[in-house]
Amino acid sequence: MKLKLYILITTTLFLFISCNKKNNRKIVVNNKEALKQAIKKAEPGDHIILKNGIWSDVSIKFKANGTKENTIILKAETPGNVFIEGKSNLTIGGQYLQVKDLYFRNGHTPTNSVIRFKTDNETPAFNCSVTNCVIEEFTQPSRDIKDHWIELWGQHNTVANNYIAGKSNQGPTLRVFLKGNEHINNQHQIINNHFGPRPRKGGPKSETMQIGDSYTSMTPSYINVSNNYFERCNGEVEIISSKSNFNVFKNNIFFECEGSLVLRHGNYATINGNVFIGNINSEFIGGIRVINTGHWVTNNYFINLKGKEFRAPLAIMNGIPKSPLNRYNQVTDVVIAYNSFINTQTPFHIGVGANISQAEVLPPSEIRSAIPERTIIANNLIHNQNTTHNVVKNYDKIEGIQFFNNSTNTQYQKELIKNGITSEDINLKQHDTLIFYPDNYNKDLYNGFNFNKITTDIFGNKRSLDNNNIGAIVKADQTTSFSNFNYGTTWYQPNQNKYNSKNHLVNTNEELLKAIDISKNGDTILLNANIFNINKSIAVDKNLILKAKTTEQVTINFTSSNSAFEMHPKGKLKIHNIEIVGNKQQDAFKTLDKNMSKAYDIFLNNVSVKNFKSVLETSKGSFADTISIINSKISHCKKGLLLNKETNDKGDYNVEFLIVKNTHFDSVSEKIIDYYRGGYDESTIGGNLYFIGNTVTNCGKQEKDNILIKNRGIVQVFLHNNTFINNPVKTIAVLWGEKNDTPKNNSINNSGEIKIVQNLKLKLVY
Amino acid sequence: MKLKLYILITTTLFLFISCNKKNNRKIVVNNKEALKQAIKKAEPGDHIILKNGIWSDVSIKFKANGTKENTIILKAETPGNVFIEGKSNLTIGGQYLQVKDLYFRNGHTPTNSVIRFKTDNETPAFNCSVTNCVIEEFTQPSRDIKDHWIELWGQHNTVANNYIAGKSNQGPTLRVFLKGNEHINNQHQIINNHFGPRPRKGGPKSETMQIGDSYTSMTPSYINVSNNYFERCNGEVEIISSKSNFNVFKNNIFFECEGSLVLRHGNYATINGNVFIGNINSEFIGGIRVINTGHWVTNNYFINLKGKEFRAPLAIMNGIPKSPLNRYNQVTDVVIAYNSFINTQTPFHIGVGANISQAEVLPPSEIRSAIPERTIIANNLIHNQNTTHNVVKNYDKIEGIQFFNNSTNTQYQKELIKNGITSEDINLKQHDTLIFYPDNYNKDLYNGFNFNKITTDIFGNKRSLDNNNIGAIVKADQTTSFSNFNYGTTWYQPNQNKYNSKNHLVNTNEELLKAIDISKNGDTILLNANIFNINKSIAVDKNLILKAKTTEQVTINFTSSNSAFEMHPKGKLKIHNIEIVGNKQQDAFKTLDKNMSKAYDIFLNNVSVKNFKSVLETSKGSFADTISIINSKISHCKKGLLLNKETNDKGDYNVEFLIVKNTHFDSVSEKIIDYYRGGYDESTIGGNLYFIGNTVTNCGKQEKDNILIKNRGIVQVFLHNNTFINNPVKTIAVLWGEKNDTPKNNSINNSGEIKIVQNLKLKLVY
Repeated sequence: MKLKLYILITTTLFLFISCNKKNNRKIVVNNKEALKQAIKKAEPGDHIILKNGIWSDVSIKFKANGTKENTIILKAETPGNVFIEGKSNLTIGGQYLQVKDLYFRNGHTPTNSVIRFKTDNETPAFNCSVTNCVIEEFTQPSRDIKDHWIELWGQHNTVANNYIAGKSNQGPTLRVFLKGNEHINNQHQIINNHFGPRPRKGGPKSETMQIGDSYTSMTPSYINVSNNYFERCNGEVEIISSKSNFNVFKNNIFFECEGSLVLRHGNYATINGNVFIGNINSEFIGGIRVINTGHWVTNNYFINLKGKEFRAPLAIMNGIPKSPLNRYNQVTDVVIAYNSFINTQTPFHIGVGANISQAEVLPPSEIRSAIPERTIIANNLIHNQNTTHNVVKNYDKIEGIQFFNNSTNTQYQKELIKNGITSEDINLKQHDTLIFYPDNYNKDLYNGFNFNKITTDIFGNKRSLDNNNIGAIVKADQTTSFSNFNYGTTWYQPNQNKYNSKNHLVNTNEELLKAIDISKNGDTILLNANIFNINKSIAVDKNLILKAKTTEQVTINFTSSNSAFEMHPKGKLKIHNIEIVGNKQQDAFKTLDKNMSKAYDIFLNNVSVKNFKSVLETSKGSFADTISIINSKISHCKKGLLLNKETNDKGDYNVEFLIVKNTHFDSVSEKIIDYYRGGYDESTIGGNLYFIGNTVTNCGKQEKDNILIKNRGIVQVFLHNNTFINNPVKTIAVLWGEKNDTPKNNSINNSGEIKIVQNLKLKLVY
Repeated sequence: MKLKLYILITTTLFLFISCNKKNNRKIVVNNKEALKQAIKKAEPGDHIILKNGIWSDVSIKFKANGTKENTIILKAETPGNVFIEGKSNLTIGGQYLQVKDLYFRNGHTPTNSVIRFKTDNETPAFNCSVTNCVIEEFTQPSRDIKDHWIELWGQHNTVANNYIAGKSNQGPTLRVFLKGNEHINNQHQIINNHFGPRPRKGGPKSETMQIGDSYTSMTPSYINVSNNYFERCNGEVEIISSKSNFNVFKNNIFFECEGSLVLRHGNYATINGNVFIGNINSEFIGGIRVINTGHWVTNNYFINLKGKEFRAPLAIMNGIPKSPLNRYNQVTDVVIAYNSFINTQTPFHIGVGANISQAEVLPPSEIRSAIPERTIIANNLIHNQNTTHNVVKNYDKIEGIQFFNNSTNTQYQKELIKNGITSEDINLKQHDTLIFYPDNYNKDLYNGFNFNKITTDIFGNKRSLDNNNIGAIVKADQTTSFSNFNYGTTWYQPNQNKYNSKNHLVNTNEELLKAIDISKNGDTILLNANIFNINKSIAVDKNLILKAKTTEQVTINFTSSNSAFEMHPKGKLKIHNIEIVGNKQQDAFKTLDKNMSKAYDIFLNNVSVKNFKSVLETSKGSFADTISIINSKISHCKKGLLLNKETNDKGDYNVEFLIVKNTHFDSVSEKIIDYYRGGYDESTIGGNLYFIGNTVTNCGKQEKDNILIKNRGIVQVFLHNNTFINNPVKTIAVLWGEKNDTPKNNSINNSGEIKIVQNLKLKLVY
């Protein structure tokens, strides 16, 4: 009887739906006005189809109302063959609207957003979606201009199966807004997307995803972020910044992302079954950072991570007692269970951010002294090849944390943790290059309050009393693989056109200039004469390699009043075994004055830089990922490397890595380096200055600040194994003690001193 | 077919339940040990029955596990005939336990709680209940000792149909705890209770109900507080302090409660269909005070209220920008719709707590400058008999509030509100003494986002497009009445034994003492001789009235070294037309040194107080509700009224109302009044000093502080129409300008001056 009833109901429903399903009108449009009219007249069930081709400078306002049964669809004639370029953007407002198959490239938005789920303040989107689209390098010309590529407003919207990569300006790539009752309890679905590489920005405000902000951090959001692939999302220290309540992060893969999934504000997040893949060469790749109350972190898989503190595999922060709304609430009632940490060195960093020692330079409302409370760490597996690392690094007391039934083959501090960890050499089964799990774990597992709600492992295998396992994986079979996780578009393959680079042999000035002009990304120009004379500035807007043909150093004389090399966005210059000589009036390397939309790089190896005004002059807004000078000589210049233009004191800086090794600075009249970051921002861990094995002689003679290397606010400074002789300055450099920047093995002769200041007084960013 | 299926399912379920239902064992116990054993051995389905009688000094630890079908019940043999007395308490821990029919009286708890839903930290209660019980004056001997009468822990517990009254010590009567995942999402039911009178405490920490605290204010609670009757719950400015999320307050009646339902911390509360009944003589009776985000305040009925600021019918507060966790978050996304305000003077006080002017005495983290945002006030009815009151009182800008379709017959500030209020003389239909509503309102109502979820009115009548009304009431019929709301126990009637007071005529000292001894609460003793001589202290522990038989003033000479009158808890002394004379060594009135568990009162009318050390000496922890001295004379005493012992600086004070009118102070050597309250606590509106129409001569001659009336920290001070002659002090009094305490019409002759200090610097309480 029951079955019959079911059939009857199903039939009725089917008929009902069928009756409501309209025949879809297909409206093909080939210009902006036609598109506008089609949207204006759109009725439920309509398909508005953009003709293939380039749509330039188009602002699409998709304001309409479909129905549940008859959505209105706006899509490309052929997926991926409709290019949105120039100053373009899309807003979506109304009910049941779908956008599909578009390709945003070669441009940027003229507004604050590329795709916004709100056409105007009165019209947010409900039950709308953007799928199978690409947004690639659709970034502002100026890195300082803030925008978002996707803004979610309203409720029940979906962003699925898109490819989104290459944002280098300020602002989170995807931002969810909760300002107003129309936008809370939104249950947006952000699923199956491929978030491709986002380059390092140099400072904060470059999350890949930000969900709410501190002002709306008390509101329920119920966002679902699942099955996404985050690939090298390196913008800043937070890949995802969750700032609202009841969000779910499930089965995402974080591949070599230099940051963490951060529960920055808001409470009761579920982080279940995610994969964090590191790279044993990098300390920048993080995992999960926990702040606030009531989160459940379960079934996650961490592998090859070596981050610390803010970038630890699992960081549990100290809070500020009675914290202001926008700072750090205490961690309470958090459960961290059934996670696997494979080759993650020290997985648990507890009390991160504790800073009582900085009370002299910070107000009480910035002191993180509230330790985590009522927090459970249970049934986790920690397995390291190198078993000398501790399981826990603590920055304060950890008495508010209870450990139950964790297992490790590495060492731990027995006096600190007491019990709840078993030291044992579990034999792990290797399933593939990434997947390891214990094959025969037959001990009791901890079964705390609500642990019965952890019903599956990372792959969805059932957990039950007689079929359970420690860590994230219960079992693996033939079909088990992280690459089964499904993401991205149907039509777009990132990096599909691989170019095979070439060599260009040049003998004359003209040949050199021409080769530079025609060379393609990654080509090498081999200089086959002793001397070249160039009377213009060489613009570098691609990957360009200049190299002496033989082991003999080649000389290039620059005679123009413009800089020898002008660095453009994405310019990557490598020079090897060349002497570049100026006329004392111009700079050796210089960035554009503005529109440095993307990062540049300079690599000098066995290079001599002589007779220039500055070695490197930069502009505000410019950013180099890496500047590397190795085995080189810099002499008879007025100024050295000037990376001091980001003076907004909001945590920004001009270069991520400045590496100077085994290089001789001689007769540079002023500072040899000026590298600046301003603003108290506890989560920034750059910039990075490696000044190692160099010799500095006769520099700083006209230096007004009486200092040789200025690095104020730079977080990581390595000043090791250098020799300073006859530099008439008072100070060689001032290092930041609190960041553990200690000079080592420097030899100083008639050259001032290296100072250490324990706490720097910086302007508060927040 | 559907019906048949339903019957089948019902039958099956019924059989299923029947099978699981055990025969209940009835275990009758008559002593503590038997009770303990019965609990120890309790099995699902057991009824543990306490024999009728007094159970003294008993700590009941009800730790057991029933099941859904077979709860374990602990109850009285006869409801109300089992008296829990002395130092007693009850804890409940486990699953499916019920407690019924007990009467807690004549005692107090030896722990922090009378009834606690947790036997120990590992054993909270789940699905347990306390019903049909009474807790009456089960209060600590000392007002300073903190406890809770009911502590809710765990999940899914019920407190229903109880009578709870007379708590006078520190601590909320009922407190819900959310500290830990076992206690969140608790869905406790607090329903159909009668919260009887809770006396004024004099300072904070005497809420009738507190749900969470700021440290757990981010957690979901989902408490249901419905159908309760709150009768004169006057403890402090907050009747209910909601400090967690998603709580529901529905169909409660607040009868003459001197406080408000306050959304102190936490967000997304629903306040629907409650009744706030005031008294046009009182400014102390409040309504709803709104702080934080996302609350819906709908269908509430406010009548005869005249409170202001913190006690306004509907107060919307200013927040502190980026507030610390325990202070004031900004109001955002609040909806106030379909409420009726009948004779409530000014119903909306907006921006309450704005205090930018106090920046000189307060730190920035105390400055409430964040105005309400994204807040909607719609479809409310405001109707006053006296139409001179404004609809809105604003303390800051109100641009973040949108008004839609409110209707009033009273005036409003057109330039402030612009639109959204219609000024109209709606003819209200009177249904009974309390219920008024518009009979024929046929205009469009505002239908904002999610307004379709407001489906009923205060009585559950449907709201629909064609059957709707402005305000809380759609319609009323014969059965409609607030007295249909159902609450309290089946067996207890508060105040059922009314005593008819008597007169006692006394002619001699002995007769006077005997009459005082035997008189009952409210009796009057008529003194029928010119002079009485008493050589002992008269203890006042009841309502005692001493009165001259004729209009001639009678003299009582007190010759003992003890105070003339000793005030005990609940002592209420009225003296009329009597001269009381001391020997200069003792105090006229004095409280007990400790255990002043309840408030006392003193009323003097046409009384002369002469030759005492102090007029009134009090102890720390003592509290008078009212001390009133009218048409009297106080002379030749060393000190006056000393109400200055609550010096903990946490907002407490020794008397709520100190009223001195038309009285002559002559030759009091030191201060005539010393009345103190310490601690910055913005929500306290007491104490209250009325010093009006008095004459003060030759006082303060030996006063070291050089002041006549000391009232530091007292919030309400009325110093009007007094005459001060020949008092050799520097200062008569210092008034608090910020509280609008302005002296009026005082005549001062050779007596120092009255000062005004705009902002007092006080210790922060929080």
